[in-house]
Amino acid sequence: MRKAGIALIGYGTIGTGVIEILQDNKETIQKRTGLDIELKYVVDKDWTTPRRVEIQSAKKISDYKEALNDPGVEIVVELVGGTGFAYTLLEESLKSGKSVVTANKALLAEKGAALFDLARQQGKTIAFEASVCGGIPIIRTIADALAGDVIQSIYGIVNGTTNYILTKMAEENLDFESALKQAQKLGFAEADPTLDINGYDAAHKAAILAGLAFNTPVDYQKVYAEGIIGIDSVDIQNAEDLGYVVKLLAIAKRYPDHTFEVRVNPALVSRDNQLSFVRNEFNAILLESTFLGNSMYYGRGAGSRPTATAVVADIIDIARSLEGSAQKSAYVPFQNLSMKNIGETQNRYYVRFNVMDKPGVLSKISGIFGNHNISIASVVQKERSATDYVPLIMTTHSALEKNMVLALDEIEKLDFCRKRGVMMRIIE
Amino acid sequence: MRKAGIALIGYGTIGTGVIEILQDNKETIQKRTGLDIELKYVVDKDWTTPRRVEIQSAKKISDYKEALNDPGVEIVVELVGGTGFAYTLLEESLKSGKSVVTANKALLAEKGAALFDLARQQGKTIAFEASVCGGIPIIRTIADALAGDVIQSIYGIVNGTTNYILTKMAEENLDFESALKQAQKLGFAEADPTLDINGYDAAHKAAILAGLAFNTPVDYQKVYAEGIIGIDSVDIQNAEDLGYVVKLLAIAKRYPDHTFEVRVNPALVSRDNQLSFVRNEFNAILLESTFLGNSMYYGRGAGSRPTATAVVADIIDIARSLEGSAQKSAYVPFQNLSMKNIGETQNRYYVRFNVMDKPGVLSKISGIFGNHNISIASVVQKERSATDYVPLIMTTHSALEKNMVLALDEIEKLDFCRKRGVMMRIIE
Repeated sequence: MRKAGIALIGYGTIGTGVIEILQDNKETIQKRTGLDIELKYVVDKDWTTPRRVEIQSAKKISDYKEALNDPGVEIVVELVGGTGFAYTLLEESLKSGKSVVTANKALLAEKGAALFDLARQQGKTIAFEASVCGGIPIIRTIADALAGDVIQSIYGIVNGTTNYILTKMAEENLDFESALKQAQKLGFAEADPTLDINGYDAAHKAAILAGLAFNTPVDYQKVYAEGIIGIDSVDIQNAEDLGYVVKLLAIAKRYPDHTFEVRVNPALVSRDNQLSFVRNEFNAILLESTFLGNSMYYGRGAGSRPTATAVVADIIDIARSLEGSAQKSAYVPFQNLSMKNIGETQNRYYVRFNVMDKPGVLSKISGIFGNHNISIASVVQKERSATDYVPLIMTTHSALEKNMVLALDEIEKLDFCRKRGVMMRIIE
Repeated sequence: MRKAGIALIGYGTIGTGVIEILQDNKETIQKRTGLDIELKYVVDKDWTTPRRVEIQSAKKISDYKEALNDPGVEIVVELVGGTGFAYTLLEESLKSGKSVVTANKALLAEKGAALFDLARQQGKTIAFEASVCGGIPIIRTIADALAGDVIQSIYGIVNGTTNYILTKMAEENLDFESALKQAQKLGFAEADPTLDINGYDAAHKAAILAGLAFNTPVDYQKVYAEGIIGIDSVDIQNAEDLGYVVKLLAIAKRYPDHTFEVRVNPALVSRDNQLSFVRNEFNAILLESTFLGNSMYYGRGAGSRPTATAVVADIIDIARSLEGSAQKSAYVPFQNLSMKNIGETQNRYYVRFNVMDKPGVLSKISGIFGNHNISIASVVQKERSATDYVPLIMTTHSALEKNMVLALDEIEKLDFCRKRGVMMRIIE
């Protein structure tokens, strides 16, 4: 099996998540990809703070140069953040012939051009899925899925903190300050939320997306960023009245005259737009492209594990492109799972019966459900005047499908039931 | 530049779209990928029916064997459909040392196992993004973005015809037959809609997704498929009353005991679930995975151009993996577009003023907007009793931002205006 040696720099929140995935899913990744992703080094200055995940076999070091000097390390994962040391680290890694995975949006938005140039010269890769909305595979969607298409515009809810605040202001009629406090309490906003609420975090992401989608350099300093500080709940309510939802949007558009725009601003989003349904801390990105049309990608923007998933995907992607990596097909059936029969599945159910409007009917039906271990969640009986039969609507808690079928069989035979009950499954 | 020779078999609706993209975007694809994707052959039995797109330089032939015998052809694109000749074609292509791109869901769901085995033996790729929801890059998301993660469940609206019908039944209170007729009239349902409305089309897609996500063989014959034929609008309305929307779902779930389920059935989907907002002919797939959490992918399911985009993405993907393909970075800034200043952008606007409640105010403000080429779309003036100042809310048609700023500057100076108007942009 082809080995790929990894050095991970930065044993923080995301780094811990990456280590967790590489260790927990090592065998799965091997079987899926035919690659042995070997975490050789974890580099950090702090080896005393306890972390959520223990390092199993990687060497724990404090000097990143030791890792760069090891020819067995082919991929360096930068998770230190900032635009100072991180820049040096990427530069030295590329010069040492390593490919790089980074989650560092500020670095790429502000100083990416030189690094990407260097990577091209070195014939190495900078992979950066985790830099924009960790839980949404938007970088590879643009670079791979839309490689043959031309993207015309990008509209994104790319900052979970501000989306959480705006959702609470709209749905619970909170003012900005109260919504921010709630977000901080729940961990959706940092103690110093400045970069989020003034739109700079979103502007970093917008700059990266625009450069990638439009194949153009983007001067981050020129990106217009208007945040949500001091946004008035009156305007959010007015927007609702007009049929809109206020969202902080990252926007990038291309024009036929060789110009483009990139900006971040709060906007009234029409309820006909899928983005208007993106609530709380979730992110989503809507792409409009010539051939594919509209498509939207939705998920968690941040968090240790979603972002770590993106980092691991990038590691695997680079490893797959290394010389001697063989696996070709996406579909690798190394499991031989057994398929459940529909009768063995568990569902919540909606059922509708047409029953005679007389005493004892509900108790009889409920009794049959109970005998089959089906617990009723709600009952609606509507009165109808023109007929002896009335609709009886019930929902159940989760039950085994074969029990449900037996219950319906039994109920169908009752003389007060006009025909077999209509049954549909419920998904929360 | 590395050349990759392509033979496309099937000059139908999707084939035409693929040819269109490869021809229209040839230069863009070259610059982005460093690859010259050369369409060498188009194979079809019918060379008389006029098509939407003319073939520029590929050789037009009727015998696919000619293409398979050409060592310059590295990728065969199968767009003939069906499970008979298509199977032979894939088999012979793989045996001839070609990789294959296919949009054929029935073939893969029903007979895929043997073909994927053959591909592995030959060290070649079968790429099949276009086989499941052409406009949603779900195959590469599962295979690449989630390569390090473990998918627990998949819930998909994967059939546009049935989603259109259910949307119309719910929103316009149509019965099944009328909604189906409307779908047929608008081209969202075929003259014979059987495979769609009985759930078999969705079941093919569910089987492919489950096999890919759970790394297991799936016996398509055992997939439970319940369609929407004869679904009663009464139940759809009842579902609405209970806070649910009825959708035809493709469902796949994995269990800890080495079992899984795959099925298609109509379901009541909670309004708290993103899938409930997917309307009309659109598709969406919700994945639940251990590390990434919930993510959703939304777009057009079918259609010539979306599906063709997926085919082209697969062609590029395989070409990138061919020996001698050099380009490494996703970000390739070969354009040098000029960034618009925020003042040069066009937007619709929402504005709120606090104005004195006296005659002439509205006409004065409207006049200033008019002088700056800003056309008003709507006006809401709310009466307030406790103050001389009342909120005046306006929305505008699309206008140049710098004109808007000038107008707000001017209005701010009027003596009946308490402070500068609040302005937000509108996105439909």
